[in-house]
Amino acid sequence: MAVRLDEIVARLGGQLVGDGGIRVTGLATLESAGPEQISFLSNPKYRSQLATTRAAAVIVDASVAVECPAAAIVTPQPYLYFARLSQWIGAQPRPVAGVHATAAVEGDVPASASIGANACIAKDARIGRNVVIEANCSIGPEAEIGDDSWLHANVSVYAGCRIGKRTIVHSGAVIGSDGFGFARESDGSWIKIEQTGRVLVGDDVEIGANTTIDRGALGDTVIEDGVKLDNQIQVAHNVRIGAHSAMAGCVGVAGSATIGRRCTVGGGAIILGHLQIADDVHVSAGTLVAKSIPEAGSYTGTVPFMEHAAWLKNFARLRHLDAMADRIRALETRLAALEEGKKS
Amino acid sequence: MAVRLDEIVARLGGQLVGDGGIRVTGLATLESAGPEQISFLSNPKYRSQLATTRAAAVIVDASVAVECPAAAIVTPQPYLYFARLSQWIGAQPRPVAGVHATAAVEGDVPASASIGANACIAKDARIGRNVVIEANCSIGPEAEIGDDSWLHANVSVYAGCRIGKRTIVHSGAVIGSDGFGFARESDGSWIKIEQTGRVLVGDDVEIGANTTIDRGALGDTVIEDGVKLDNQIQVAHNVRIGAHSAMAGCVGVAGSATIGRRCTVGGGAIILGHLQIADDVHVSAGTLVAKSIPEAGSYTGTVPFMEHAAWLKNFARLRHLDAMADRIRALETRLAALEEGKKS
Amino acid sequence: MAVRLDEIVARLGGQLVGDGGIRVTGLATLESAGPEQISFLSNPKYRSQLATTRAAAVIVDASVAVECPAAAIVTPQPYLYFARLSQWIGAQPRPVAGVHATAAVEGDVPASASIGANACIAKDARIGRNVVIEANCSIGPEAEIGDDSWLHANVSVYAGCRIGKRTIVHSGAVIGSDGFGFARESDGSWIKIEQTGRVLVGDDVEIGANTTIDRGALGDTVIEDGVKLDNQIQVAHNVRIGAHSAMAGCVGVAGSATIGRRCTVGGGAIILGHLQIADDVHVSAGTLVAKSIPEAGSYTGTVPFMEHAAWLKNFARLRHLDAMADRIRALETRLAALEEGKKS
Repeated sequence: MAVRLDEIVARLGGQLVGDGGIRVTGLATLESAGPEQISFLSNPKYRSQLATTRAAAVIVDASVAVECPAAAIVTPQPYLYFARLSQWIGAQPRPVAGVHATAAVEGDVPASASIGANACIAKDARIGRNVVIEANCSIGPEAEIGDDSWLHANVSVYAGCRIGKRTIVHSGAVIGSDGFGFARESDGSWIKIEQTGRVLVGDDVEIGANTTIDRGALGDTVIEDGVKLDNQIQVAHNVRIGAHSAMAGCVGVAGSATIGRRCTVGGGAIILGHLQIADDVHVSAGTLVAKSIPEAGSYTGTVPFMEHAAWLKNFARLRHLDAMADRIRALETRLAALEEGKKS
Repeated sequence: MAVRLDEIVARLGGQLVGDGGIRVTGLATLESAGPEQISFLSNPKYRSQLATTRAAAVIVDASVAVECPAAAIVTPQPYLYFARLSQWIGAQPRPVAGVHATAAVEGDVPASASIGANACIAKDARIGRNVVIEANCSIGPEAEIGDDSWLHANVSVYAGCRIGKRTIVHSGAVIGSDGFGFARESDGSWIKIEQTGRVLVGDDVEIGANTTIDRGALGDTVIEDGVKLDNQIQVAHNVRIGAHSAMAGCVGVAGSATIGRRCTVGGGAIILGHLQIADDVHVSAGTLVAKSIPEAGSYTGTVPFMEHAAWLKNFARLRHLDAMADRIRALETRLAALEEGKKS
Repeated sequence: MAVRLDEIVARLGGQLVGDGGIRVTGLATLESAGPEQISFLSNPKYRSQLATTRAAAVIVDASVAVECPAAAIVTPQPYLYFARLSQWIGAQPRPVAGVHATAAVEGDVPASASIGANACIAKDARIGRNVVIEANCSIGPEAEIGDDSWLHANVSVYAGCRIGKRTIVHSGAVIGSDGFGFARESDGSWIKIEQTGRVLVGDDVEIGANTTIDRGALGDTVIEDGVKLDNQIQVAHNVRIGAHSAMAGCVGVAGSATIGRRCTVGGGAIILGHLQIADDVHVSAGTLVAKSIPEAGSYTGTVPFMEHAAWLKNFARLRHLDAMADRIRALETRLAALEEGKKS
């Protein structure tokens, strides 16, 4: 698809500097762009690449527009502009509507939906308009998938779960598996507590590949509108994740944790169960959150890495940190006594 | 399904206080229960909710029975009672027996089993009585699934692996993938060691969504009876997990580790290879277990999180912990010399 | 399959001590081997098991050959020899060539390939010679799978991704899901950046069960030849992993990280985004790599675990490490003053 720069500006705004008749066919970095591609400059770190780019056009802010050797679209937030443009000229082609001959469909599927090969739509499942369900997905009984959502291949949605509109679910994700709930017998064995809740996923959510979201034990697990979950995230039963929060890969959220709106959680972080995390909290990658966080802010709890030999020397001391603190206190007491003696 | 309280007590025991003819149709928390639901009080933290619950009946222990505004079932362990009751009135409906027209079945399937759409049962696989295998599962050649087990959609079981009776496997779980075994050439490249063992999973096990269990290299990987594994757990080749141990989400267990009976492992913990963990060991969430644990007890190795600025100040010191210890020792020596001088 | 020892030596080299007519049918450890199996001794820790093994033959190095009670194959690197032998007599049987009747094939499949039940090969996908694609795999449009590669059940390969020759992909792995890329609106909501790159996987790669590799945002994610990835690894968009690097289970690699050749990364380690890791770097299990590593070597950043009570005492001190350092400095100053006073 070739798009003219004046068409872009007409649709997305911004100020065009250069020939509106120039056509672009794709997106690229400043460094790799060819003469039919459009690029952007957002991070000042890449500013030096602007002078030598071969891009047909560059999305820039006003401060660097004069340096642009190609056509420029000037906008206060080039990255955001680029994101919107990517959805227009970089979107993956949507599979055609219709149900593949090998799909096993018992639920309700509108003509505008696309159901891939060997996908299964169970009884009483409801599929919205323009939904894409790719190959080998399994949609359980009474599950609902909202209009314009897209489930990639091999997604599993359990019975009764609901996914909102315009939500994207990547391959291997599992929505609605049983929460991890057991009562313990006196002999140490475990008695399963049936998980009778659902997973409710809002609109405009993205769920990464192989991410898992458990159904509630009693009551539901809730992913609010606009939440973005990366790959391999585990969300346990009865968790609530507030609107527009985003989590990077490999995060684990334990049962009944409540996470506020607009939070960000770095990769591999773990949030323990029954905690409350306020709105606008940012948790660094690799951090174990073991207490509630009642105030917005950035929180971290990770250790530096170092050469293995240096690590051995330094980190062995952690076993004796309490003793070190005692020794410092003893030194302070003894030194004070000496100082006192000297005065007298 | 509506069940009378006197039926419940007749089947599960406990002492009924109130009208045995009351019918309940489902389970709920004290807070959310409606007049057709039964609830429970186990955690003293929720005791204040008892007075205002709208539940038809509450499972309680003797100490709070008099406070219950509704019918009560009195039992020493309300949570355990609730678990058993949940399996009766909260269980998901079992799919009907029979093989779906789109399933590809070459193995041995009894009439009582339910094989979902587009599931594949390979040659010489053996499926037990009343087994449920949901849509898009793949059961490899010569694999065995024991009576009454339930595999949710999109589970993969490799050739020759065995799953016991009444075991539940959630979507996306993989049983029997190759262990990570390679010999290294002098140029740094890796030569695969074929993984010729199996995975043997016991009875009454639960395996969470997207959990992976590798087959043994030589010999088998063994998950003993009653083990409960949450989602996204990785169990490497030749691991043995003792009966009734439970692991929370995102745990990783490296090759040939042997874990005792009745252990619990918190979310995101990692157990390194070739270690021995005794019975009744409890590992905290996020802990890296780098040595064998020969004695029962609770073990932890995680760092506190804090506001990012405070973290920067404090954790940078970890690089100098060894130097700090040296400085304390030097202070002690110098101070002792001063104190000695003063005496003389 | 029974193989004579003289056949083995003829094909794989080494010096045979004993009867070349002895036949072996399988591989086993020294401890478990029976009289039709061949074993090996590589780790000196198991040397004492040599005397009592019932194996028909043992692969050993010259230093222990005289101790071997059975036939011996003498080679400088027994483990490497065993690996090569395992590929001969321990390999899983390859499924027969042909397309299963239930597979949905629109792409290009040669007669030598084996396409399992309910697998989907989309339009314009290209499948190489002797490729195995097991049940319920989904191969997207224009994807390519190189000769002799093997995809186990339930693998998802997105549109346009390429997998090289002799590469093994385990069940549940996802190749080519969207990278986690969003621009943020002023109200905190996220605008998706379409991910227009691909995943390019080299030859002789192994990708573990439920491992996920995201497609590039602009440009490609690249896994070079001979890389070995264990289960449940997350590789983000635009990462490059150098040839013959190996990563253990549950590792996370954030976006645009570049990892050198012949690196090893221990289980559960996390490598943050945009970092550069040199060739021949070894990262210990559980380590968070938060800075680039420009030099080969071993790097670690983990804390010791201990009994929970001891941990509580010691690790609480981490919150006050900066204060402890200040107190040591103050002590040094005061002590120096005292010492100075004493001299004068």
